[in-house]
Amino acid sequence: MSRCISLLIGLFTLTAINAQPADFGDKAVLVIHGGAGAEPRAEMTAEREKQYRDTLEESLRAGHKILSRPDGTSLDAVEAAIRVLEDSPLFNAGRGAVFNREGRNELNASIMDGKARKAGAVAGVSRIRNPISAARAVMEKSPHVFLIGEGAERFARDQGLEMVSPLYFWTEPSWRELQQAEKKAKSATKTSQEAPATTHFGTVGAAALDAAGNLAAGTSTGGITYVMPGRIGDSPIIGAGTYAENGVCAVSCTGVGELFIRHAVSHDIAARIKYRGDPTAKAARAVLDELPNRKGGIGGLIVLDGQGRFTTVHNTEAMQRGAITRDGKSFVAIYER
Amino acid sequence: MSRCISLLIGLFTLTAINAQPADFGDKAVLVIHGGAGAEPRAEMTAEREKQYRDTLEESLRAGHKILSRPDGTSLDAVEAAIRVLEDSPLFNAGRGAVFNREGRNELNASIMDGKARKAGAVAGVSRIRNPISAARAVMEKSPHVFLIGEGAERFARDQGLEMVSPLYFWTEPSWRELQQAEKKAKSATKTSQEAPATTHFGTVGAAALDAAGNLAAGTSTGGITYVMPGRIGDSPIIGAGTYAENGVCAVSCTGVGELFIRHAVSHDIAARIKYRGDPTAKAARAVLDELPNRKGGIGGLIVLDGQGRFTTVHNTEAMQRGAITRDGKSFVAIYER
Repeated sequence: MSRCISLLIGLFTLTAINAQPADFGDKAVLVIHGGAGAEPRAEMTAEREKQYRDTLEESLRAGHKILSRPDGTSLDAVEAAIRVLEDSPLFNAGRGAVFNREGRNELNASIMDGKARKAGAVAGVSRIRNPISAARAVMEKSPHVFLIGEGAERFARDQGLEMVSPLYFWTEPSWRELQQAEKKAKSATKTSQEAPATTHFGTVGAAALDAAGNLAAGTSTGGITYVMPGRIGDSPIIGAGTYAENGVCAVSCTGVGELFIRHAVSHDIAARIKYRGDPTAKAARAVLDELPNRKGGIGGLIVLDGQGRFTTVHNTEAMQRGAITRDGKSFVAIYER
Repeated sequence: MSRCISLLIGLFTLTAINAQPADFGDKAVLVIHGGAGAEPRAEMTAEREKQYRDTLEESLRAGHKILSRPDGTSLDAVEAAIRVLEDSPLFNAGRGAVFNREGRNELNASIMDGKARKAGAVAGVSRIRNPISAARAVMEKSPHVFLIGEGAERFARDQGLEMVSPLYFWTEPSWRELQQAEKKAKSATKTSQEAPATTHFGTVGAAALDAAGNLAAGTSTGGITYVMPGRIGDSPIIGAGTYAENGVCAVSCTGVGELFIRHAVSHDIAARIKYRGDPTAKAARAVLDELPNRKGGIGGLIVLDGQGRFTTVHNTEAMQRGAITRDGKSFVAIYER
């Protein structure tokens, strides 16, 4: 019975437009997220929460430093902010990537320049230290938008990006999570195609607006623990996990990637603003609300528009996030709504 | 001078809303395309043109046969129509796939069910005979939407799909095209990242509407000759090359995939219809017109809406296409606009 009730509560979880601290306002030059997931609040320690918050703050500062220069671009800020999160073992992107069913880390990322609506993405890579920088190289140094697997890795190497041994992505918590998922999967009656339900959607992302009025967005992920090899979610898909268009908005998503692909979430938010004049916050919330929900929620997203108005929404228990204004006032949050 | 003029003409090529035969009308249950490219009209022989037309007709009939049954679904019709084109060596999808820079065939496909907005896609596969069927298996038999590379191939094999030796995709014309592209690239002063400009956008696709009012769309491609390994275009990207949503429209695209991804073309057409009430034909044409164009054009697309109204547009010299009505009246076209 109590299980029934919690299921019902779960199914009808409302999307929260996250309240920012009262004195922060709704304007920012950079908004970031570290995934619509974290340890449940009950399992979080004060020490670990501080580590998360400090890293989110560091990511905001890295982007803000660029945006404070007269010629600092939103693209540079997005890349810098995401690199901080990729380099941290705390987030499921870059260094902290989780393991798939075969014990491998398959990383995906994408970036989009709202000015020229140019984009770059990589997927299924295991040897590039910073996938977000590889995505940017694809955008700027190749005639293509999307490279996968070994082809993407050879391109990144040829471009002089830092390559690492796949062991670089081995971390104790991710490995432990894989063992637990494997044990759970083997004792379950599920077919092998069913992924274990997880509410830990680790993905990182950023959206920025520079002084020239250019928007940019980027997303990077280490996938899902114990997932099928070769599975790609929304993070490297332009129009799903990442989208940016000057004068409209910049979006980065995190959550059950399959739903975000099927509903073209990031482009759908932009389309509602552009074609129907929906306010940014309303569009963000409505698109998330219209996705099929499930117990524990399915994810969240950040949106920044051309006037610097931002919105973060999620229907999971937590979404690690933060924002910073042009004059350097910042906030970070994990559970608060 | 004449080169200059042809360049100017090329740059300002207007998108044609293709005139269907006068007695055909604008209603159909199945619309297909075989790519916004073919031999330039001057190089086409009567015999080869007949082969193209016969295969397009065969594809339409395969889909129509399914839609004529009381319980025939648009998904089945899309898959059947595309399988005919994949099995033909004439089209750049399945059997007729072109070779990448390393002499490999990397195939991509996606399919979408407009009723539940479910989708499936595969990319970077070299041993699956019918990628469109693999995309459908991903949609229906896995919890995922997008699988790439070896993971996708193992999944397809586990699902009992027909696997083939990579040699199955070796065809004389595709191999000759690779040799020519390689020669051209080596004699050119271009950097290695620049893909040779081609106006031969081989991709096949279909959009269908069944008696229950359900829309579906699918796209399948063999890539671009001499392209970088691992490059993915719009064909397997939901919202770019393929999109379907009941009551709105079903879309399949062909062309310079990078542009179709960056502009989320298929979802953008749906969004204009849904949020602004644009007529289907107007939305299709406007979205193609707004893409950056280039000499020779950049592609085309087919759209079918919930009332059975269809539009095919392209700004290349040719787009192989066809449509069939509920009562079995069909037409196919290559160059005519």
